[in-house]
Amino acid sequence: MAVYTTVDDSALNEFLIAYDIGEILSFAGIVEGVENSNYLLRTTKAHFILTLYEKRVDTGDLPFFIELMTHLSATGMNCPVPVAARDGQVLHQLAGRTCAIFSFLDGTFSRFPNLLKCRALGASLAELHIKSQGVSRHRANALGPASWTPLLHSIGADADILAKGMHDTITARLQQILMDWPTDLPHGIIHADLFPNNVLFVGDKLTGLIDFYFACEDILAYDIGICLNSWCFEADGSFNMTKSRALVQGYESVRHLSTAEKQAIPVLAAGSAMRFFLTRLYDWIHTPKDAFVSPKDPMEYWTILRFHQSVSGVSAYGLDWSLPHGEMY
Amino acid sequence: MAVYTTVDDSALNEFLIAYDIGEILSFAGIVEGVENSNYLLRTTKAHFILTLYEKRVDTGDLPFFIELMTHLSATGMNCPVPVAARDGQVLHQLAGRTCAIFSFLDGTFSRFPNLLKCRALGASLAELHIKSQGVSRHRANALGPASWTPLLHSIGADADILAKGMHDTITARLQQILMDWPTDLPHGIIHADLFPNNVLFVGDKLTGLIDFYFACEDILAYDIGICLNSWCFEADGSFNMTKSRALVQGYESVRHLSTAEKQAIPVLAAGSAMRFFLTRLYDWIHTPKDAFVSPKDPMEYWTILRFHQSVSGVSAYGLDWSLPHGEMY
Repeated sequence: MAVYTTVDDSALNEFLIAYDIGEILSFAGIVEGVENSNYLLRTTKAHFILTLYEKRVDTGDLPFFIELMTHLSATGMNCPVPVAARDGQVLHQLAGRTCAIFSFLDGTFSRFPNLLKCRALGASLAELHIKSQGVSRHRANALGPASWTPLLHSIGADADILAKGMHDTITARLQQILMDWPTDLPHGIIHADLFPNNVLFVGDKLTGLIDFYFACEDILAYDIGICLNSWCFEADGSFNMTKSRALVQGYESVRHLSTAEKQAIPVLAAGSAMRFFLTRLYDWIHTPKDAFVSPKDPMEYWTILRFHQSVSGVSAYGLDWSLPHGEMY
Repeated sequence: MAVYTTVDDSALNEFLIAYDIGEILSFAGIVEGVENSNYLLRTTKAHFILTLYEKRVDTGDLPFFIELMTHLSATGMNCPVPVAARDGQVLHQLAGRTCAIFSFLDGTFSRFPNLLKCRALGASLAELHIKSQGVSRHRANALGPASWTPLLHSIGADADILAKGMHDTITARLQQILMDWPTDLPHGIIHADLFPNNVLFVGDKLTGLIDFYFACEDILAYDIGICLNSWCFEADGSFNMTKSRALVQGYESVRHLSTAEKQAIPVLAAGSAMRFFLTRLYDWIHTPKDAFVSPKDPMEYWTILRFHQSVSGVSAYGLDWSLPHGEMY
């Protein structure tokens, strides 16, 4: 639920003089995005998104995100294209905020994507991992494994609001993950937040990846873990192995996964579940009861975490299945 | 700040089977509208607004609003066109709410409209008053003069949070308005909420009137009072007589105002100021301090009210100026 900053017509008109994107036809604040204010801007030339970066975004990170989206779109990926003003710069100031204009992408997201969509997502994820190799700037994963112990520490005994003894149980599960964490897998730029609401489709055709504001450098296959958690569990908490297999097959149709990467999937997915469990738990504890945005239930990710720590191996994800050549499902 | 009801992709897809409006290209909740949830829906055929009516709207009033918009758009007015489903009906159910789809209008609103816009607004207001004559349904003004005394009564001594003795001062001013209220002026359907944010422009061309959910039957010239208050006062509270004159000239370019109507402008504008002052004061008192939507300052309308009760006559509004034929400003 966004649009924290209001932009009035005279400020907008003055701002757009710096751009060569046509005359304004319509302008509306949209509800997507939690961290930033987003406006849908339609001009005589095209549809755009105007994003104003609110205080939760570190403006020092913005050049990395802009370079990444510019680079990916230049290589033909479906992602928002940063639009430079007449001065050649993408980042500008409006209403006291740093802001940028992007191309608008067609498509809507699915809350529970079907098999075809899972496969398409896997392929686009691999494409992102390969095509982002040309990006020159760097960004570490501020929410990577090194952050989880301090985060749990800051939550402390408040974790026990979920259940008695929960803090100790989380500590034990986190220790296990960190002990098993792989150290020698391929690294690169990952999206790190590719939930279904960040992937657009028209019909079953993937038309866009959006919201790159958690992108960073980390283990590539960790990104698969994030997607397995957010794409392959059903509303009732059950794991859909057929979707998992479609997602990984889609990925491998573009980028081959080594045996080491595949074998690390359970711990990477468990780590991803821990990351979202901990940040949700933190928000759960710290969001005022009467806030407009309700925090997401951390327990959804606890269930997912326990799933990954209970599986016997990669067969649980359908990764060792073999089918006659060309047969997909 | 709207979108109180969430519509997911599967519910939307199923819902749209009932319509012949093309395939979905994009769908986004927008921030406009306080009473309802509004979505911008783009399909392969056109742009639309999907409105879900939230609990503050009496669904019994919806057929009146839909008939009004259907009728006005059929006569060529720039207003949202209600879109019937394949069954011929406009009102349907989605996500537990009554809802309707409308054509999307180009344009953005101005916080401080210029002279050309004030004139265009006046002309469109008169057009609305004339063209709405063919509407068969009726709706009384629930926020008309008869409601102001009970509303002030429900506020009671809380009014004194504004200033000591305020309740008595309001009572006296309200008595004066009700005593002077005209009884024999032309009635008809009025918009009753035509603030600048409900009027869209591309450049200075008026492209749409929106948000008909306060429309009702009342004195036509009362609608002029509402517009004078919301269009012709500057940010510093000063009254811009040139804008007032442009607005009324625009109105009279379409519908002639009788001398009685013109002479009633000060009391009608004062009554309109009282109506918005009282509802804002009520919201000011009853909105929780930490609510997401901050209530509007009632004192803005107290200043406007005092202006109208201090003027010596219609010359204060520029209504008795005469200029050589054809000269507008």
